[in-house]
Amino acid sequence: MSKISINDVLQLVEEQLPFAAEHGFTLESLGRGRATVRAPYLSKFLRPGDTIAGPVMMGLADYGIYVALLSEIGIVPLAVTTNLNINFLSRPGPHDLIAEARMIKTGKRLAVGEVEIFSEGSDTLVAHVTATYSIPPLGSEQK
Amino acid sequence: MSKISINDVLQLVEEQLPFAAEHGFTLESLGRGRATVRAPYLSKFLRPGDTIAGPVMMGLADYGIYVALLSEIGIVPLAVTTNLNINFLSRPGPHDLIAEARMIKTGKRLAVGEVEIFSEGSDTLVAHVTATYSIPPLGSEQK
Amino acid sequence: MSKISINDVLQLVEEQLPFAAEHGFTLESLGRGRATVRAPYLSKFLRPGDTIAGPVMMGLADYGIYVALLSEIGIVPLAVTTNLNINFLSRPGPHDLIAEARMIKTGKRLAVGEVEIFSEGSDTLVAHVTATYSIPPLGSEQK
Amino acid sequence: MSKISINDVLQLVEEQLPFAAEHGFTLESLGRGRATVRAPYLSKFLRPGDTIAGPVMMGLADYGIYVALLSEIGIVPLAVTTNLNINFLSRPGPHDLIAEARMIKTGKRLAVGEVEIFSEGSDTLVAHVTATYSIPPLGSEQK
Repeated sequence: MSKISINDVLQLVEEQLPFAAEHGFTLESLGRGRATVRAPYLSKFLRPGDTIAGPVMMGLADYGIYVALLSEIGIVPLAVTTNLNINFLSRPGPHDLIAEARMIKTGKRLAVGEVEIFSEGSDTLVAHVTATYSIPPLGSEQK
Repeated sequence: MSKISINDVLQLVEEQLPFAAEHGFTLESLGRGRATVRAPYLSKFLRPGDTIAGPVMMGLADYGIYVALLSEIGIVPLAVTTNLNINFLSRPGPHDLIAEARMIKTGKRLAVGEVEIFSEGSDTLVAHVTATYSIPPLGSEQK
Repeated sequence: MSKISINDVLQLVEEQLPFAAEHGFTLESLGRGRATVRAPYLSKFLRPGDTIAGPVMMGLADYGIYVALLSEIGIVPLAVTTNLNINFLSRPGPHDLIAEARMIKTGKRLAVGEVEIFSEGSDTLVAHVTATYSIPPLGSEQK
Repeated sequence: MSKISINDVLQLVEEQLPFAAEHGFTLESLGRGRATVRAPYLSKFLRPGDTIAGPVMMGLADYGIYVALLSEIGIVPLAVTTNLNINFLSRPGPHDLIAEARMIKTGKRLAVGEVEIFSEGSDTLVAHVTATYSIPPLGSEQK
């Protein structure tokens, strides 16, 4: 079971993750080590080619892995991304993006997650992401 | 010499790169295969730890490499990122970010660039990025 | 169904992939867009900590994705890796390594695959890899 | 000044880095946070296209960063790679490879290095690598 609730995430986003808040990212579902997040389509996301800008996908993936990680370790706001690698696979059109994040390893100091990003209504993968988070030493900043 | 002018970039950003426009990214200097871009500090960029959110840095790096690439191949709006890898090295405080992008290989079909991101007033690297762009076949979309 | 046979791969390895041959890598199974490959344990693979050296895992992953790609496009020896990103998740002991490779996107010019590497007899992931291959234009080198 | 000597590295390679030893990798020069290493050409390195196999370059880069890191932190054999990202830029012919590694951040727990790989006698970059090492807690395994 997740160590955090959807409400915990909503509060975190509102208070502390303005990037997610500003872009309207939402949390669709939450499980232990898993999160599905959504970027509701906004015309400001577009770039040349009528496709959604890469940074929106990178931000959405980062948000998804952050939530998936917190579902395993609880609310540790100072967990930070140390590496993110994204492969852009196809160009999403002007639709919502859905990102399915899951942790593939959660260690004491480092955690690695993977995200698959889809365009709503299609099962073609639009981007694939892996990211590493650094977890601060216990006691140093557990909320 | 750059194949594009600073005005070309400003027009491109305004018309076609709303992510860069919305976040207030600016172009500081431009050379053949090189661009220095800036993210003027906005409080909405912050995340827990009083540091700037990763997606802002990823977006800034992507913008810098895009401009550096266009400086070598001219205005090809449909050049798209295929891979971006970022290492976050230290936590930038609430200051402007400066990103120095340069192409390390510009081939016919693929181009690879590198970006170093600094926090204004410090020479400590805050993030290091490499990214690959796919260049559409000649004639297919040259503007 | 795979466009190549296990025999095609064995011949390719023997004639053209001395790195795989020299390290004794074997092909365990082959499907359309999928390959499972093995690195039988050799003491020369060890590094400090009684764990298997990273380059062995990188080489095995690269080999697995190459075979998975050829299973979709046929024998195109000049398909080359353009990017490989590996996350090392836990330290494999002195055992065989098994790598499960699958393509996540096979386009006309670029293909992206993913590999999960396990240590024989354990279901703990030891490494996760994504890699991009560039596919040469049709006709230029199809064997 | 480097915290280790060339002799320290030679001993480490012979005793503990069979992958480097087996492939004949050599150390050309060593400075604080920097190392230049070489893969003398061997015909077994070739892959289709008369070019050197990717795993040789990945192994050489990993070795170079390992040495560059130890030059800053001393002999800590259990420092391990957690992430490596390589972009292959051009195909090296049958010549020695030279890799210039330098640390771009050496923290207490994580260190990130960058490597440029050249083919002997040419100043065209053949590959670019970034890699992250995890440094074990002090006292736990300092030799």
